Amino acid sequence: MSRISFAEMQKVITSALLNAGMNEQDAHTCARIHTESTCDGVNSHGINRVVRFVDYVKKGWVNLDGKPSLVKNLSAIEIYDGNRGPGILNALFATDRAIQIAEHQGVGIVALRNTTHWMRGGTYGWNAADRGYIAISWTNTESCMPAWGGKDTRIGNNPFVMAVPRTKGHVVLDMAMSQYSYGKLQVTRLKGENMPFPAGFDSHGNLTVEPGPIEASMRILPMGYWKGSGFAIMLDVLAAVLSEGLATNEIDKIKEGSCTGCSQIFIVIDPRKLGGAAFTNQVADSVADYVNASELAEDSREVLYPGQSTLRTRADQLENGIAVDDGVWTEVLALADASSSQQA
Amino acid sequence: MSRISFAEMQKVITSALLNAGMNEQDAHTCARIHTESTCDGVNSHGINRVVRFVDYVKKGWVNLDGKPSLVKNLSAIEIYDGNRGPGILNALFATDRAIQIAEHQGVGIVALRNTTHWMRGGTYGWNAADRGYIAISWTNTESCMPAWGGKDTRIGNNPFVMAVPRTKGHVVLDMAMSQYSYGKLQVTRLKGENMPFPAGFDSHGNLTVEPGPIEASMRILPMGYWKGSGFAIMLDVLAAVLSEGLATNEIDKIKEGSCTGCSQIFIVIDPRKLGGAAFTNQVADSVADYVNASELAEDSREVLYPGQSTLRTRADQLENGIAVDDGVWTEVLALADASSSQQA
Repeated sequence: MSRISFAEMQKVITSALLNAGMNEQDAHTCARIHTESTCDGVNSHGINRVVRFVDYVKKGWVNLDGKPSLVKNLSAIEIYDGNRGPGILNALFATDRAIQIAEHQGVGIVALRNTTHWMRGGTYGWNAADRGYIAISWTNTESCMPAWGGKDTRIGNNPFVMAVPRTKGHVVLDMAMSQYSYGKLQVTRLKGENMPFPAGFDSHGNLTVEPGPIEASMRILPMGYWKGSGFAIMLDVLAAVLSEGLATNEIDKIKEGSCTGCSQIFIVIDPRKLGGAAFTNQVADSVADYVNASELAEDSREVLYPGQSTLRTRADQLENGIAVDDGVWTEVLALADASSSQQA
Repeated sequence: MSRISFAEMQKVITSALLNAGMNEQDAHTCARIHTESTCDGVNSHGINRVVRFVDYVKKGWVNLDGKPSLVKNLSAIEIYDGNRGPGILNALFATDRAIQIAEHQGVGIVALRNTTHWMRGGTYGWNAADRGYIAISWTNTESCMPAWGGKDTRIGNNPFVMAVPRTKGHVVLDMAMSQYSYGKLQVTRLKGENMPFPAGFDSHGNLTVEPGPIEASMRILPMGYWKGSGFAIMLDVLAAVLSEGLATNEIDKIKEGSCTGCSQIFIVIDPRKLGGAAFTNQVADSVADYVNASELAEDSREVLYPGQSTLRTRADQLENGIAVDDGVWTEVLALADASSSQQA
């Protein structure tokens, strides 16, 4: 594990993306988002995804020239086709556009279909909150989890994001529908440890805390058992209906990498049109303070609101460098090396 | 347990509400909703709540003359004050109004503050879907659950509802943020059984499947541990911010029964403005069929989409009568008896 500065990481990822054929502005933007996600501690959807993204570009699964095109405009709702452009750029465009609509209507909804992996969902919540807006966003995905009562993967982990701006630190939830990600299972298995709570079923249908047997069965657990299963199904139906796009069962047929062809929703509300920024702040403070002041459980050191630990990780890593796995960093450095790239 | 016909149950509840001082039209509407919820198998928020509702009216905690008054109109968003009127009537009004806005704008959001218990959240999802609309609704509540890592109750169970209309049966999720309700714990304890999955912590902080110790500690488990905790916090902030209303920490100070003064959100989208009803139906069918066709887990007989088991219960009880606890029914019958009511 090494600590890399924000500027250095962004520079290296930018080079890797330029070598992959991205234009200067897009490479800079995507590198910034990958670096921000990593700085926030979400390596799985930051630095760890750069190699895979470049691979998708080479395979033609992500179209570097794909830009969102307007399908339909309904006053407060707009539908766009992402044309399989880079998921980050498409999702940032959708967030911007939803903000523009919300500025006029109070609420703006952009439904984006036929896009590609947006990397960390939380990006679009933090982004909207940084600009003073409330955001609710989600994506559907290919299936990676059985529905409750099932054995084979039929539902996506469909990350769901909610964000409210707040002066002392935004309140931001970024939550996938599985109790744990496959990435978390893998990391825990490599450390020779078990999950703190049941994480899925082994191939005999026994609930287990052991990561290995769950990775093998692909029977990861929806959060809250039947509840996360139902929520994932609803998010999928809504994403596909609103965007006139694909649902998980259709994304499953594409087989061109994770999330290719997926459907995403971006709902933005302007709090300045409602009670105002000061009122929003006051409500968010009162909720955060109430939660933080909880009487502590036996094994607990503190009680946090959504987003609070992210802000701490961000502050620490901005100051002390961003922790990155040496193997991952070496791979990204190789992609950033123009000469080796040109030989390839 | 007796089986009562839909018509009989609605007639008896109507009488109970008339005796409580409600006007004829309101009593008829509220009785229908209580009966529908019971017919759908949600006795806890149907027939079982009638006595408590009447008690709240007598105590002045629900104002029978309270009607929603417009606070703010922002094109696609409207804010109303519920004036502590009957929660069912306020929530039906909000759903109607959000539908009217959606008819013009594609999306309509009504934020309702200072209302009272809406009974079953799913009511407003089923209602919108019956009329061909997509709905997303939620309410905050007084605190009933510790936040993750905490010991004392600081967050509400904040029911969250999503509904998509579908010819073969709407897809409707109605999900509280706790893994189990206190009602479910009580029923299970009275049967001398344990919960199928860990349901909360005992007073020593041990995760347990025994209902009794959790009812005593009030340390029920958020669904998905930290995930349900974070989601409950976000829903609370958003409900209070959007409605310019109260958050859970302020509702906790009111102490006039469950949910008095709470904040609710009603988001409605008109699918006919998007891909149309046929397309919505086709997407919802494809998702429902995919889930239903799951390979079954070892101990599973079927895999259902959200709302599917509700539809079966409804069909069964419409035909064979609605199952109701005899003690509960006797209490409602007593309230419906005008002579005994007039003596009180």
